[in-house]
Amino acid sequence: MRKTLSGISPYKVKPEPGDIIRLDNNEAYTSLLSYVDFSELEKTLINRYPAESTEALIEAYSKFSGFPQNNLLAGNGSDECITLICQYALDPGDVVMVLEPDFSMYEKNARIMGANIEKIALHDDFSMPIETVLKKIEQKKPKLFLLSNPNNPTGRLYEQQDIEQIIAALEAHGEGILVLDEAYIDFAGESPFAPKLLDYHNLIILRTASKALGMAALRLGFLAANDHLIDGIGAVKPPYNVNTVSAQIGTQLLKKPELLDQFLLIQLAQIAELEELLNEFADGVEGSILYPSSTNFFLMKLNEAKSLTDFLYEKKIKIRYFGCPLEAVRISAGTKEEHEKLRAALKEWSETYAPSIR
Amino acid sequence: MRKTLSGISPYKVKPEPGDIIRLDNNEAYTSLLSYVDFSELEKTLINRYPAESTEALIEAYSKFSGFPQNNLLAGNGSDECITLICQYALDPGDVVMVLEPDFSMYEKNARIMGANIEKIALHDDFSMPIETVLKKIEQKKPKLFLLSNPNNPTGRLYEQQDIEQIIAALEAHGEGILVLDEAYIDFAGESPFAPKLLDYHNLIILRTASKALGMAALRLGFLAANDHLIDGIGAVKPPYNVNTVSAQIGTQLLKKPELLDQFLLIQLAQIAELEELLNEFADGVEGSILYPSSTNFFLMKLNEAKSLTDFLYEKKIKIRYFGCPLEAVRISAGTKEEHEKLRAALKEWSETYAPSIR
Repeated sequence: MRKTLSGISPYKVKPEPGDIIRLDNNEAYTSLLSYVDFSELEKTLINRYPAESTEALIEAYSKFSGFPQNNLLAGNGSDECITLICQYALDPGDVVMVLEPDFSMYEKNARIMGANIEKIALHDDFSMPIETVLKKIEQKKPKLFLLSNPNNPTGRLYEQQDIEQIIAALEAHGEGILVLDEAYIDFAGESPFAPKLLDYHNLIILRTASKALGMAALRLGFLAANDHLIDGIGAVKPPYNVNTVSAQIGTQLLKKPELLDQFLLIQLAQIAELEELLNEFADGVEGSILYPSSTNFFLMKLNEAKSLTDFLYEKKIKIRYFGCPLEAVRISAGTKEEHEKLRAALKEWSETYAPSIR
Repeated sequence: MRKTLSGISPYKVKPEPGDIIRLDNNEAYTSLLSYVDFSELEKTLINRYPAESTEALIEAYSKFSGFPQNNLLAGNGSDECITLICQYALDPGDVVMVLEPDFSMYEKNARIMGANIEKIALHDDFSMPIETVLKKIEQKKPKLFLLSNPNNPTGRLYEQQDIEQIIAALEAHGEGILVLDEAYIDFAGESPFAPKLLDYHNLIILRTASKALGMAALRLGFLAANDHLIDGIGAVKPPYNVNTVSAQIGTQLLKKPELLDQFLLIQLAQIAELEELLNEFADGVEGSILYPSSTNFFLMKLNEAKSLTDFLYEKKIKIRYFGCPLEAVRISAGTKEEHEKLRAALKEWSETYAPSIR
């Protein structure tokens, strides 16, 4: 194995039994598959490479999102978009800046290209340490700065003006590009950057169908940027990267914006329900902190994070545990029934294993 | 853009109108989609990331192919498998060896990783210049040697002993790995290397569902190698790289080996029909050479390759043109009706535009 890859470990995905309640992956808790016309899919020429289907998908996503069609690329999930951006932009030894904590695939893809990673720790409340960030950009002249907004796993939406300052600093020092991963933006409202995309020389926006649109299984990601960046990234993109069946299902659902709006509203209601439930729980656990979120999940710090995760898993509820330095759990919104089971399990845990109740 | 990418151009895919006969992409001319149970697909949890579906796909492909389950990875087409291998193996400046002509994605992926490409021209009859190859391996100590067997675009199957010598030479000089892309092997018979895969330290075999299995739209590729290589490549693989719907359709069809065998037989009959038709045509065009093929396509050299390609496109038949130095066309097998239209168009072209008939 290459030296630069030493220490890179696989992102292991463990298949789970069907009766486990999955609150660990920030997925939508249900989908709109019942609105898909399968008779159309049954006519697919699955022996032919995708081409027309990708065009139709991009056209539909353009109408849905407002990004111009020629400024969009589709990827095999936004994971592939991150890979393509790193392949396009990074020579060995180039500096890539990321925040800590943030989505781990940024660092992994940058390291595969031999880049040096500069991590900047967020403030304790997960707000942006903008002065440090700007100083570091000036010093290190990163080629790429990748960040999720709202942030995964903290749930926090950054100040618009912080992001604007980062974009300006990156442009001023070494022609760096900001990759703004808006995977969770639908839960937070409108992106202030999307309508102005073409005003920027050095901004790439990532979107996904895996979260608020409820299509994680299909692996549909989108990359929006100005013509110059789209041309460059398009040159490294493999020709048939989005399969026809996913593209067809995605296209069908993207053509139903009212339905997707309703789908978002019901998810927002469940997110509110989860917040209330977790607030109540956190109130009873000394030293715990539940962070405000602009996403479909909540991060909660508590000393007993690991023990809580294991306990819930025993109760067939899977949440995500983050070890040192975070020592926290991340829980995504589920159905009402799933929340009731979560509420009961949390109550049991509080009564049995969290004696340090206020 | 990175200097190392200068000259890399996008692999442009032009969507075609539905009434064009596609003989340009080496796809199967029909599919087995009608044997897929869509009621199973309608139950898919498309809101959940793929995990169980990939496991089931690998299990099914293992049974179908005979490769041990733990020695298989699935990719988003074998294109992604090539990318992963290059990410795993290549540091900037490493040497990658390819044959000329061969599948263009090998070189592209190697260049993205900053590797230096050494191309070795095949003999005029497209056989392996084994002495040159062995000498070059000793001199240049390539990290990777990627080749398709049977070769795309020539259609030729190499001698088993040539490949064995290449594997041995790569191991002896600088721990190089042979990537043996068997995308078309089903048309050629049994791979002599597959049963011995685990005997090799430095062999990776690539397979695809896009050719003889008739599922190009689904983007399902497979990579088989020993434990050490699988672990290393697995570490750079993105976690959710194969979407659930493709995996489900692929799994369903892979569980019908008799059906897939029959499907291969009808394709072989069409390949034989195409060969006869092209032989007849080539006999009447002075200076043309039709090469023997172990695949579902034929390569034919002729001086008027471009003019023939354009003429057929006017007749709504798309074939693949290769410019200098090949000056050839590549035509894949189609249905009986498509062959009749091809035959008629070739006849018209011969009579009108190829006055140099013997």
